[in-house]
Amino acid sequence: MVKFDFTLTIHYNKNGIFFGKVIRVESREISQAVIRRLPRYYRYLGELLESGVERISSNDLSKRMKVTASQIRQDLNNFGGFGQQGYGYNVKYLYTEIGKILGLENDHNFIIIGAGNLGQALANYGSFEKRSFVLKGIFDVNPTLKGMTIRGVPVRMMDELKDYIRENDIEIAVLTIPKNVAVDVAKELVEAGIQAIWNFAHVDLNVPDHIIVESVHLSESLMRLSYNISRYNEEHGGN
Amino acid sequence: MVKFDFTLTIHYNKNGIFFGKVIRVESREISQAVIRRLPRYYRYLGELLESGVERISSNDLSKRMKVTASQIRQDLNNFGGFGQQGYGYNVKYLYTEIGKILGLENDHNFIIIGAGNLGQALANYGSFEKRSFVLKGIFDVNPTLKGMTIRGVPVRMMDELKDYIRENDIEIAVLTIPKNVAVDVAKELVEAGIQAIWNFAHVDLNVPDHIIVESVHLSESLMRLSYNISRYNEEHGGN
Repeated sequence: MVKFDFTLTIHYNKNGIFFGKVIRVESREISQAVIRRLPRYYRYLGELLESGVERISSNDLSKRMKVTASQIRQDLNNFGGFGQQGYGYNVKYLYTEIGKILGLENDHNFIIIGAGNLGQALANYGSFEKRSFVLKGIFDVNPTLKGMTIRGVPVRMMDELKDYIRENDIEIAVLTIPKNVAVDVAKELVEAGIQAIWNFAHVDLNVPDHIIVESVHLSESLMRLSYNISRYNEEHGGN
Repeated sequence: MVKFDFTLTIHYNKNGIFFGKVIRVESREISQAVIRRLPRYYRYLGELLESGVERISSNDLSKRMKVTASQIRQDLNNFGGFGQQGYGYNVKYLYTEIGKILGLENDHNFIIIGAGNLGQALANYGSFEKRSFVLKGIFDVNPTLKGMTIRGVPVRMMDELKDYIRENDIEIAVLTIPKNVAVDVAKELVEAGIQAIWNFAHVDLNVPDHIIVESVHLSESLMRLSYNISRYNEEHGGN
């Protein structure tokens, strides 16, 4: 657990002995490590809400999430006094506050580029609507798909892309197209004023710093899986 | 960059002064941080190979990958003297060695559970074959899909699942099913002797420690995107 509440100064002497000083630093920023964990808290709190749980103690949440109760308390203390000794956390309040931090209280208009299987899977992905992501358009280069609708949203051709983004206040583009075209399409998106790209193409997009890119590199995830299998087999004498 | 070449012992006194000792530890293990970066190296090296590049310097690789040359040298030095001063790295050798570490030189038989859009997208995913993941079966509960083939692989019903895993030496199951059934299916998979699960269901699977689970939580990725948009707008006075 990293919380940037301290600065450390460290000095070494030649025997490898080190010494230094811990200084408490005032910081209201929530650390990146906590931010990275928020979506998971949000998911668990959402499930608790759905099953009608109004309050939960850090210990109970700890058992469910398989995180230590002390980490949960440290993390959730960032939001200031939501937990009450003996009463636990107010699930709805915490869920709402974390949702606000994650920017989920505002509507986000988005489009999907690439109407293949993955594009269709994402278009049909229920989580979007629940979390105020509004599918406004689907684009593809394949003329046989023109006019086909997915969840009531018609597939448009790429020549309409730029105007459509500008006229419909589109914030996010989801890229589910092959890597050899993704880089050029990303360029078009930037020119049209897109703010963020959710990238499923197997390539690092080369866009200006102010464009937010979140990449889902499936093959890298698969390689981590494969690495772990391989390591397990080595340690346990498998193939 | 974390490399576990040292152990630290740290003590605090009441003024926040700390002291301790650094001990060098013999370690041939590659650190987790390096492992996490390997898939990205592998991807870039693969692209270089495809475009016929035989050797590359850490500086050129640095420019492409947007990682410092010194980090590249540190990371790749883990594989022992592949880089030669003035000659650069042998792309093919490095690609092959990293592929071995990632367990990509062995065939991995896998099945997909859930023949919906996402399951079909993954079944059609070219990266699998290139990296010796062999699709052996697709399973679903929907009887109207029975016998349909995707990439030549027929969709089977779930009652065949356990026997099929046992008889066909299946190592990995890809879960593209709703979260409310994923937990039970994971249990069946474990009973049938599966080794690893690539989990796309929006839930943490509760499986024994020896089962390798790699989860792709799309909604968490989407929340990170949304958080970054929201933070950007706050900092730049957007909505």
